[in-house]
Amino acid sequence: MSPKELDTPCVLIDLDRVETNIKRLQGYLDAHRIANRPHIKTHKLPQIARMQVDAGAVGITCQKLGEAEVMADTGFDDILITYNILGESKLHRLTQLAKRIRLCVSADSDVTIHGLSQACASAGTEVGVMIEFESGKQRCGVQTPEEAVTLARLITSQPGLRFEGLLTYPTTEHTVPFVDKTRALLKTEGIEIPCVSGGGTPRMWDAHRWKGVTEHRAGTYVYGDRKTVSTGAMMFDEVAMHVLTTVVSRPTADRGILDAGSKVFSSDTLDLDGFGYILEYPEARIYGQSEEHGHVDFSRCSVKPKVGEKVTVIPNHACVVTNLVNEVVCLKNGKVYEVWPVAARGLVR
Amino acid sequence: MSPKELDTPCVLIDLDRVETNIKRLQGYLDAHRIANRPHIKTHKLPQIARMQVDAGAVGITCQKLGEAEVMADTGFDDILITYNILGESKLHRLTQLAKRIRLCVSADSDVTIHGLSQACASAGTEVGVMIEFESGKQRCGVQTPEEAVTLARLITSQPGLRFEGLLTYPTTEHTVPFVDKTRALLKTEGIEIPCVSGGGTPRMWDAHRWKGVTEHRAGTYVYGDRKTVSTGAMMFDEVAMHVLTTVVSRPTADRGILDAGSKVFSSDTLDLDGFGYILEYPEARIYGQSEEHGHVDFSRCSVKPKVGEKVTVIPNHACVVTNLVNEVVCLKNGKVYEVWPVAARGLVR
Repeated sequence: MSPKELDTPCVLIDLDRVETNIKRLQGYLDAHRIANRPHIKTHKLPQIARMQVDAGAVGITCQKLGEAEVMADTGFDDILITYNILGESKLHRLTQLAKRIRLCVSADSDVTIHGLSQACASAGTEVGVMIEFESGKQRCGVQTPEEAVTLARLITSQPGLRFEGLLTYPTTEHTVPFVDKTRALLKTEGIEIPCVSGGGTPRMWDAHRWKGVTEHRAGTYVYGDRKTVSTGAMMFDEVAMHVLTTVVSRPTADRGILDAGSKVFSSDTLDLDGFGYILEYPEARIYGQSEEHGHVDFSRCSVKPKVGEKVTVIPNHACVVTNLVNEVVCLKNGKVYEVWPVAARGLVR
Repeated sequence: MSPKELDTPCVLIDLDRVETNIKRLQGYLDAHRIANRPHIKTHKLPQIARMQVDAGAVGITCQKLGEAEVMADTGFDDILITYNILGESKLHRLTQLAKRIRLCVSADSDVTIHGLSQACASAGTEVGVMIEFESGKQRCGVQTPEEAVTLARLITSQPGLRFEGLLTYPTTEHTVPFVDKTRALLKTEGIEIPCVSGGGTPRMWDAHRWKGVTEHRAGTYVYGDRKTVSTGAMMFDEVAMHVLTTVVSRPTADRGILDAGSKVFSSDTLDLDGFGYILEYPEARIYGQSEEHGHVDFSRCSVKPKVGEKVTVIPNHACVVTNLVNEVVCLKNGKVYEVWPVAARGLVR
């Protein structure tokens, strides 16, 4: 079956391109002896996580406990959750998970570390902890090497915890100086840093430049999207996720309305102009959206679509599209291969 | 159980406020003899649609066929789908639905109308059709009364279709002149307009001013959100949807990180500054988001939260939050009452 026969909107995943994208990054990281720990948030599919691990990833990265539980249930035994896990309910689930697999989490405060230690010690289990530090993105993360040292000391002194190293997102020019200084300070206390984990797809091909960063976490590379292409990290013909949509209205000579809006594409612009790139009409601009409609300006296109015509969109941001749909249609050799439920979608806790 | 004991992030629905919001709009529309046909996209819950119909709504509005199917399966027998339904698969589902309930759809092109007619006639059923027209929002909709007349003629001449009238979104100052002119033109052809359907929450209290608009479709009024409050249509203490979150990191003296980001709030700003309003810290600003984190500037707050503290957020846009979560926690008298799966979420077709 050709994908153009599918009802719309639907999300298409080109498994041939996925495989190529996985092999390309794995080959690069292998060549530079950097461990690969891909972030599953982009696909949320055990099937693709399996392709990543089979290709050589040391384990996987999840952002929420619920995602990690789905992945553990489908056979993954080495998971990093890059999140401060807090609160009785989540700490209980964490200890249950830690009894089944090699589990590691991030932390950037003594509150998080004390909670992890108490929960693991009383449950008779152990979890690895990486200290998250700031590399300029202003999310979580300690601000100074001195703070990192204080937390490393705490982790190594508390029961139920393994100190696993340092973690940041994304890796930037701030990363290496921070790591170097922290390493020097920790050395005087006799604390080694087992792993330094960085991440990000836009600058993934710079990973070999960050001396001392021993692991890379990329997510989007597996599919690619309009943002990834705009950064130069991938090419349009490497993108493996497309949204097939139908033009449901042509109210004016220039305007067209798609049957997919923010409920499929999300409202993420990621500093791009508009909400996606239409393969068949590269001069078109998705200038606006409502929840169920994409609003397109076709004025710059010499030929314009008819009502009922199907068009193919590369979304701005692949990860959020994955989270918005219950299933994706996988292609092999350009034909419909299988429909996969997005097993780890919508898991906010 | 107090909602503050719940694990986070979670979406709280205050059913007492929902009931009040439903009664308030129903009372207003009743007083002005305007039919109320609420849009279920805001809640996607059969339970709340039932409250709306029990309070006096003439039927409900859905935006996608999948939503209408869920609602029909749970007992709703008068549904308007405000969408151009196109393509073999959807037209088949539409005819199946039309055999079970009183069903009406919108159309703004001859392509849509021919498709509806052929599908209904060959399936031996009938569907109501409303002509969607433009009121200034530049979405779907015919641009001129003359185009509306052409389509009305087509609908009344084709088998399997009932001409049900005119439809727009949102109702604006452009609406009444358009309707008046179309009515005059249709009168000369002997075609009556059974219903004129307008919509929108921000200007819902103006509905009585739009002479000749006989039906109102509002969605967000049932919950309210930060946008609705900003337009003056509702007050903060009428808002029935809140997102309970935990502060998971305090990387600097001023910055705090919530455990909910665009995967809960979406990236919709709706022209507001930031991504939500924190009840406990009204001076705080959610200045950024990643998928799983909300990034908050607490610098203007005299007291700032600790790591692990729970805070309550009014989101910018209620409808998109509903679509992002698998379940909502309903409250009565401020206590946890029931957890409801969001039955019609994620239905993009």
